[in-house]
Amino acid sequence: MQLEFTITPPPSTLATALQLKIDQKTKPPGALGQLETLALQIGLVQNSLTPTLDHPHIIVFAGDHGLVAAGVSAFPQSVTAQMVANFLAGGAAINVFARQHGITLLIADAGVNADLSAHTGLIHAKIAYGTQNCLEHPAMTAEECSAALQQGAELVNNCHATGCNCIGFGEMGIGNTASASLIVQRLTGMPLADCVGRGTGLDDAGLSHKTAVLQQVLDHHGESDLSPWEVLAHFGGFEIAMMTGAYLQAAELGMVIIVDGFIASAALLVASLCYPAVLDYCVFSHVSNERGHQALLNHFNANVLLTLDMRLGEGSGCAIAYPLLQSAVLFLNEMATFAEAGVDQ
Amino acid sequence: MQLEFTITPPPSTLATALQLKIDQKTKPPGALGQLETLALQIGLVQNSLTPTLDHPHIIVFAGDHGLVAAGVSAFPQSVTAQMVANFLAGGAAINVFARQHGITLLIADAGVNADLSAHTGLIHAKIAYGTQNCLEHPAMTAEECSAALQQGAELVNNCHATGCNCIGFGEMGIGNTASASLIVQRLTGMPLADCVGRGTGLDDAGLSHKTAVLQQVLDHHGESDLSPWEVLAHFGGFEIAMMTGAYLQAAELGMVIIVDGFIASAALLVASLCYPAVLDYCVFSHVSNERGHQALLNHFNANVLLTLDMRLGEGSGCAIAYPLLQSAVLFLNEMATFAEAGVDQ
Repeated sequence: MQLEFTITPPPSTLATALQLKIDQKTKPPGALGQLETLALQIGLVQNSLTPTLDHPHIIVFAGDHGLVAAGVSAFPQSVTAQMVANFLAGGAAINVFARQHGITLLIADAGVNADLSAHTGLIHAKIAYGTQNCLEHPAMTAEECSAALQQGAELVNNCHATGCNCIGFGEMGIGNTASASLIVQRLTGMPLADCVGRGTGLDDAGLSHKTAVLQQVLDHHGESDLSPWEVLAHFGGFEIAMMTGAYLQAAELGMVIIVDGFIASAALLVASLCYPAVLDYCVFSHVSNERGHQALLNHFNANVLLTLDMRLGEGSGCAIAYPLLQSAVLFLNEMATFAEAGVDQ
Repeated sequence: MQLEFTITPPPSTLATALQLKIDQKTKPPGALGQLETLALQIGLVQNSLTPTLDHPHIIVFAGDHGLVAAGVSAFPQSVTAQMVANFLAGGAAINVFARQHGITLLIADAGVNADLSAHTGLIHAKIAYGTQNCLEHPAMTAEECSAALQQGAELVNNCHATGCNCIGFGEMGIGNTASASLIVQRLTGMPLADCVGRGTGLDDAGLSHKTAVLQQVLDHHGESDLSPWEVLAHFGGFEIAMMTGAYLQAAELGMVIIVDGFIASAALLVASLCYPAVLDYCVFSHVSNERGHQALLNHFNANVLLTLDMRLGEGSGCAIAYPLLQSAVLFLNEMATFAEAGVDQ
């Protein structure tokens, strides 16, 4: 892997001053709970006592998975392209929530197995028409993986150039919970069964079959010494690899990163094993209902904002959590202090 | 108690049609988790397949507590009036969050122990200059309690007349966690220690003292047959009684009600023991970090939206949760169906 990122923890210079500012607001100490933790984190990321969230973006990366041929999803592969069309028409959940919160939504074809019609809203970043079936081959070549990482990084650069300092990443790809499960199992060592969920809605038999297929894949790729990048290439999807590059570039640029659900967290796992400081920039939007996500969040020692039993992907958790980030920044900037308000402390 | 409310469960006529509408949206069944439950509830409350949240309001009721003389709070009583001034100046947390979400904020003097300056934003609904010390007397007379309930109901009527169909209630009153603990203990029978928390920030010694004082109060008012209204009058505050009336009127008017934290839930407990159907109209915004709230939510069998370790009151949980209600309504109204989007189901 040739790509190199420069990711350092944000300076802690202002930590004391930020905490003092939070504690001087007209409220009992700590009474805003996780909003206070969030205000501190965002202040540190921006190295500012008056942080702001500017031009928030969500990029949804879409890609297809060769492993779908083995029957690991409740929906057919055609749904990936159909949902991209739905995103572009503004009818999906992420469209609704992004509009609600004034978040700019970008849709990227990372590797959909179809020729998508040209659309002003569609970013053509296709690496290939879906990944290889990882029951037989690595999902992608090292070159493809590297290209996907680079594309993800470049898209984040473009967002940053518009003044965006807060970004979330979503995904669409039939079969990608299977891909994420493989990545999480290989990189954490958790038992496979604890990493595999129902995805878009498998029944018990479907879940058993999915788990058996994923065990076959793991047996087929038995090499014990795969690097995180190699795990990504063997088992990942183009949308997952692109998200990984996007996380790393966003952290390098000092952006506030909002992390979505299970698949988004699997991409972050790869990123964080290579560059641990990426996690300092991440806000964890929600615990997905997809099996394995809570364990992965524990691995990150994540302070999660929402537990709403959602499991949709698309960056929907990022969008739903965004107003909480806004609240954190707004109370820090707008609330009166005890002294200003003449309130006894 | 002379006040009577007419509160019936919302009609369930549209339940099947609402669930079908939710399930036809372009997402795996159930993938929006609690947002789906919320969409269904709001649709039922409004008896509509296209519910909307119009002119949302939060009313903050402020009142003082005679029991503060016994040292049950970390802050002096003067802070109640000072915080009302802070609300009116726009500098408190609830101001920030209400502004963020376009929620109209009303501040009512339910019984502050001070003559508050006239201010266009202040509703004068003062029943008395704070309650009696319930170590010695009932906190309020039956007439005062009834007047407070009525005032709360009237304020909700006024909001409803502006077109508001979604309302939350907050409170400010030094000592009111103590009052709420007494109400919750008497009406649920939970052990006192499980109903008493640190409020604005008592240390261990302060918490022990508070608990001992509250035990004294309970011993003093040993009558075993108090009705919920009598419990409210004996141990409540004017702001709590006003909230109780406000809940009941909002339910009678078929409004969506957003419930804040521990004190707001204690007021709802009184309301719900007299009119159980009030709970059908309630959305529970968050689990407060104040001891006793989780148990009280369990008592309500509540489906809670947020767990952010907040414990501020002021209606802050209502405001923070409001965008989730909006998200629920928006996905129901704006998302494309599988058929509309041409997505395989």
